[in-house]
Amino acid sequence: MATARIIDFFNTRNPATPCLVVDLDVVADNFTKFRRALPLSKIFYAVKANPAPEILRLLADMGSSFDCASVAEIEMALEAGATPDRISYGNTIKKERDIAAAYAHGVTMYAVDCEAEVEKVARAAPATRVFCRILTDGEGAEWPLSRKFGCVPEMATDVLKHAVSLGLTAHGISFHVGSQMTTVDAWDLPLSHARTIFDAMAEAGVQLKMVNMGGGFPTRYLKDIPTAEAYGSAIFDALSKHFGNRMPETIIEPGRGMVGNAGVIKSEVVLISNKSANDNVRWVYLDIGKFGGLAETMDEAIRYEIKTPRDGADKTPCVLAGPTCDSADVLYEKNAYPMPVTLTIGDEIFIEGTGAYTTTYSAVAFNGFEPLKAYVI
Amino acid sequence: MATARIIDFFNTRNPATPCLVVDLDVVADNFTKFRRALPLSKIFYAVKANPAPEILRLLADMGSSFDCASVAEIEMALEAGATPDRISYGNTIKKERDIAAAYAHGVTMYAVDCEAEVEKVARAAPATRVFCRILTDGEGAEWPLSRKFGCVPEMATDVLKHAVSLGLTAHGISFHVGSQMTTVDAWDLPLSHARTIFDAMAEAGVQLKMVNMGGGFPTRYLKDIPTAEAYGSAIFDALSKHFGNRMPETIIEPGRGMVGNAGVIKSEVVLISNKSANDNVRWVYLDIGKFGGLAETMDEAIRYEIKTPRDGADKTPCVLAGPTCDSADVLYEKNAYPMPVTLTIGDEIFIEGTGAYTTTYSAVAFNGFEPLKAYVI
Repeated sequence: MATARIIDFFNTRNPATPCLVVDLDVVADNFTKFRRALPLSKIFYAVKANPAPEILRLLADMGSSFDCASVAEIEMALEAGATPDRISYGNTIKKERDIAAAYAHGVTMYAVDCEAEVEKVARAAPATRVFCRILTDGEGAEWPLSRKFGCVPEMATDVLKHAVSLGLTAHGISFHVGSQMTTVDAWDLPLSHARTIFDAMAEAGVQLKMVNMGGGFPTRYLKDIPTAEAYGSAIFDALSKHFGNRMPETIIEPGRGMVGNAGVIKSEVVLISNKSANDNVRWVYLDIGKFGGLAETMDEAIRYEIKTPRDGADKTPCVLAGPTCDSADVLYEKNAYPMPVTLTIGDEIFIEGTGAYTTTYSAVAFNGFEPLKAYVI
Repeated sequence: MATARIIDFFNTRNPATPCLVVDLDVVADNFTKFRRALPLSKIFYAVKANPAPEILRLLADMGSSFDCASVAEIEMALEAGATPDRISYGNTIKKERDIAAAYAHGVTMYAVDCEAEVEKVARAAPATRVFCRILTDGEGAEWPLSRKFGCVPEMATDVLKHAVSLGLTAHGISFHVGSQMTTVDAWDLPLSHARTIFDAMAEAGVQLKMVNMGGGFPTRYLKDIPTAEAYGSAIFDALSKHFGNRMPETIIEPGRGMVGNAGVIKSEVVLISNKSANDNVRWVYLDIGKFGGLAETMDEAIRYEIKTPRDGADKTPCVLAGPTCDSADVLYEKNAYPMPVTLTIGDEIFIEGTGAYTTTYSAVAFNGFEPLKAYVI
């Protein structure tokens, strides 16, 4: 997944490791693929995946809207050229003064998942639109989905009716199928719940307009993933099945799917060792680990593809770990990672598919190591 | 554990949440307790636990030495007034150019756990001292200890002999019993291994001098912990048992035990909700979570004590979560945390025992949230 431009950048600039390089052409290509695959849906890029100003400007120029998790992200999206009507404050957990700040910036669409949050929005951003997030089971997703966001579908009607009673517009429903979702049919069940809620609200005299179908679109790590077209087609079928010819406005919020495959991290092998004389598992220590940007290796959830200059050689299973004095800073141990037997201390390796959820996840100064440096080209 | 000075700081300065306040008097008190409990051991503060300049200056003034994980930490210790002979480069995973930088700063003591690392030290820091870290099982520790650091005791003699053959001084042995170790006898077994290695090296004509007994000293979270005296006494007994009247120089490396109980994080309750109408578990969302400084809640390993303004009320189990749009940003769920039934959105709460492993673990900008702000008083 290292493009010619990325390889050229590494060769000519030879940046110090560890660092991330993101190719904007890949981001642009991903945006175009999403737009073609889901032509009826508005794209709200999930800023949290990678908020680099160059990425936000590119997407703003291409017509993207933005899903923001905080006031800081809203301000970054505005700075990149997005107008407030293209911004969704998509975090269901917001301080009331942050809602007020977003409202002052002109933001008119807010996520909620309970009555208490509706009340905050009604006070701090009066007469705006809210959408209620519902729980999904996350089955088939590779990054764990807890019950942190959303309420059960049965409760959503109460939440939205409460919004209407407080002068807000009950705009719609949102859900998230789970990050790195590799099952294209995962949108079917939550869309059926959305339809049920649309009907229940219509009976109460409120016409919902929008379904926010969230993110979850994967990036390719070690295993192949379905194409954007396959997702588009499965989602269109599910929408048709549940909404027929009364299709709602729809939104998607790709983050990982928009930038994951656009980035490559260059790292250096700091040490290779064995724990005992008769140990056949090598420990390979890199200059980046769980606290330097690879937090998504938590529980070995995300398994990145790693390229080395010695990939022609035989490979044996290795434990991969980061450079900090923290025992928990181990990337892959339960499922050891095959690395070339000829791998040598000082080798530069490339961790692919690392454009999403790396730079901002990076610890500010753990063990004195600097946060991950990034170049957007 | 919030001291009068910390409470006064919160009351008079009313800093924005989330933030950490560290009381230097508690750090000084901890240092004195360690010195009294282990009068024959040199104290090397584990800088990674909290590298705030005020803490390093205080400890340098009190005569502490410093266990550093990186060149940046070495430079911070020097800046705080430590001389190079009071610095140990304690990370077993070092780039050769970082060893060279440490050597240029005058550092003469390095951790190793394999022959490859010995070779790097021999090239980049010739004629200095190395100590070899050995594996321990970590039983009784509350923060997971992987096999990341150290070799089996049987291999340590080969590593140290290799050091001697390359012109380095084989200075001694180190081990770490595991962080937040609440069993005072945990030092006994690795000290017996150390003695065995001392004997094996003596047979080869090399007299080791030092045992680095690492950290692991706990801080009080919800459960009471043994006193510094209890650790001191158990460690002295184990040393006497294994080394008799040929006692080696010893080092301890407290980090958590030095600063953990000196800090209190103030946080705000952002949202309290239920997931369904008949759900009896409340979700309580704070403005700090796993990516904002509470990384040690990973796998719910460290369970902090939390004080609220409504602790007189009845308590029911809650799921505690952070403010980010990340499903994994949940602090306590498997073991729900009892919180007052009267807890209210906007309440300020205090998370105690958070002086260690919070500020630097904090993500640089995840979801647009700033890293944890700290005040050292």
